[in-house]
Amino acid sequence: MLEHGGRLARAAAAYGIPREAWLDLSTGVSPHSWPVPPVPTEAWHRLPEDEDDLLDAARAYYGCEHLLPVAGTQAAIQALPRLRLRSRVGVLSPGYAEHAYAWREAGHDVTLLPMHELLARADEFDVTVFISPNNPTSERVPVGATLGATALGENTTRPAVLCHDRSRPRSLLQEQRWVIVDEAFGDTWPALFLQPREGLILLRSVGKFFGLAGARAGFVAAWPALLDALQERLGPWSLSGPTRYAVTRALRDTTWQATMRDRLRGESASLATTLATAGLLPTGGTDLFQYCLHPAAARLHHALAQRGILVRLFTDPAALRFGLPPDAAGLARLAQALTEISP
Amino acid sequence: MLEHGGRLARAAAAYGIPREAWLDLSTGVSPHSWPVPPVPTEAWHRLPEDEDDLLDAARAYYGCEHLLPVAGTQAAIQALPRLRLRSRVGVLSPGYAEHAYAWREAGHDVTLLPMHELLARADEFDVTVFISPNNPTSERVPVGATLGATALGENTTRPAVLCHDRSRPRSLLQEQRWVIVDEAFGDTWPALFLQPREGLILLRSVGKFFGLAGARAGFVAAWPALLDALQERLGPWSLSGPTRYAVTRALRDTTWQATMRDRLRGESASLATTLATAGLLPTGGTDLFQYCLHPAAARLHHALAQRGILVRLFTDPAALRFGLPPDAAGLARLAQALTEISP
Repeated sequence: MLEHGGRLARAAAAYGIPREAWLDLSTGVSPHSWPVPPVPTEAWHRLPEDEDDLLDAARAYYGCEHLLPVAGTQAAIQALPRLRLRSRVGVLSPGYAEHAYAWREAGHDVTLLPMHELLARADEFDVTVFISPNNPTSERVPVGATLGATALGENTTRPAVLCHDRSRPRSLLQEQRWVIVDEAFGDTWPALFLQPREGLILLRSVGKFFGLAGARAGFVAAWPALLDALQERLGPWSLSGPTRYAVTRALRDTTWQATMRDRLRGESASLATTLATAGLLPTGGTDLFQYCLHPAAARLHHALAQRGILVRLFTDPAALRFGLPPDAAGLARLAQALTEISP
Repeated sequence: MLEHGGRLARAAAAYGIPREAWLDLSTGVSPHSWPVPPVPTEAWHRLPEDEDDLLDAARAYYGCEHLLPVAGTQAAIQALPRLRLRSRVGVLSPGYAEHAYAWREAGHDVTLLPMHELLARADEFDVTVFISPNNPTSERVPVGATLGATALGENTTRPAVLCHDRSRPRSLLQEQRWVIVDEAFGDTWPALFLQPREGLILLRSVGKFFGLAGARAGFVAAWPALLDALQERLGPWSLSGPTRYAVTRALRDTTWQATMRDRLRGESASLATTLATAGLLPTGGTDLFQYCLHPAAARLHHALAQRGILVRLFTDPAALRFGLPPDAAGLARLAQALTEISP
């Protein structure tokens, strides 16, 4: 399995610093969780049922009709490659690494490309995978005509190699070109969320903006036949009852959402200022993290960890990703540590 | 997808009876949930980490070392068929239908057999799937020599057809015969739990005995290489943070477990007596449900539903499964309804 942020227990052991003493900036998850009320016993007790309000709440929140709840975008990332026969897949790089990993694991031919090349060479692929805004670089897919042309070209004529899964949906879906856009970090600018259509698959995360990464919840927006095939693949009860309960209410809490969007924008701007002041001018950023290319990223990562500050290290290219500190004290602690380690 | 019990919202709509007025006996989930304490914010907020106490709690509870937590036995049922190339698979029938469904969906050659035939003809299969005690018939796999001979014969020499997933574990695991035993309803007799060994895969459910079906949690007990391949297949963060929190504590609560075993035995015996008294002598039963073969099962199911009592209907063979009523009033209500519909 791939390495991820959020491995606080491991860092605590490696650096001999107790867990509660860390400032964990290693994920892009908001430090401010939506406040989950007490979970009713029934949500723990009963098998989860689709006939609750989760789907309608998501339709209202995302402003689109065709959605499938999934156990985090990770579940969709793993399942989508298994709905297609062997395909040529272009994946944004650098970017959230689980995409390329999942397509390769499922036996597809994966090419990693930076944004401009992936857009320019989209015709060469049966499937193109974008992340927008990208994690960790923060690049966005240019909306409009370019993506449209990329997305919905004519059918591929390359002969298909029939593989393991012989169910009907797979062969039907095989006829199409897919464009996948992972919008897991898009919630602070909902007006920029894309609208699904035939051939266009959008991934949405509940964990990041709502600060509910532990809930394991996300949504796929796509055309109905794709969602049917994906649901069949994922099987029944893929979200827990407590998660359905919490996420339904978080998606309906528009007051909290509006306040939090403003707050996160302000806090991310403060983080960027702090980094820039310390000589680490961010190369990119979203409202949930800042990204800094730096040749000595590994040294800085280690030096921060020695001071109980966990950030995410990337090696190709060498870079650091800083999540938002939970409060002003956390930001000040980061600023102080940065002055000590002189980036 | 297959039909299941627990579809109370659907029954409420179909029969025009409000949800809260139903006596839901349609699942084998215990009516008595382990009482989950308030979930700490961190469990919702952070990405779940493997380094909590969940695995050690499960090792203590199940009395075996090699375990993998999964998002319900359903997750394992769906994933195991995708770890093998096309195989000859013998599956217990009648039995929990998701097993045969999952093996077929993954492209394997599935043969459905009753217990004695599956045991007798085990040599014909690369994989045999048992459920013990069986849901819904309650039959148990005879432990000891028979299962041993079934499980661990020499390697199959039939040529393998290389299929979709080209990862390494798949081909390695392909060399083995597998015996899968789904022990989801085994918790009230823990001394009868089998011990995993090479070739023997055991499925354990947290939802039934602990009354936590909404948590979506279970365990696979098997040899390390199988668990590694399964974990790789299921990917990171397959259990939510709140579920890891709750299940860890439920597995450690040995006092509650001992009390509940006695209580469920008593309540299931009372249910059997009630059914027998009404002319529905159970054909089989566990401590969590009773099973009644009956030629007029469909009529009885409908007549009970008209009275706001939901039970599980099986059609091949025609049968009803009754879960435990939550209290004496529920049992009395069932008894009264049965006198009205004269089975």
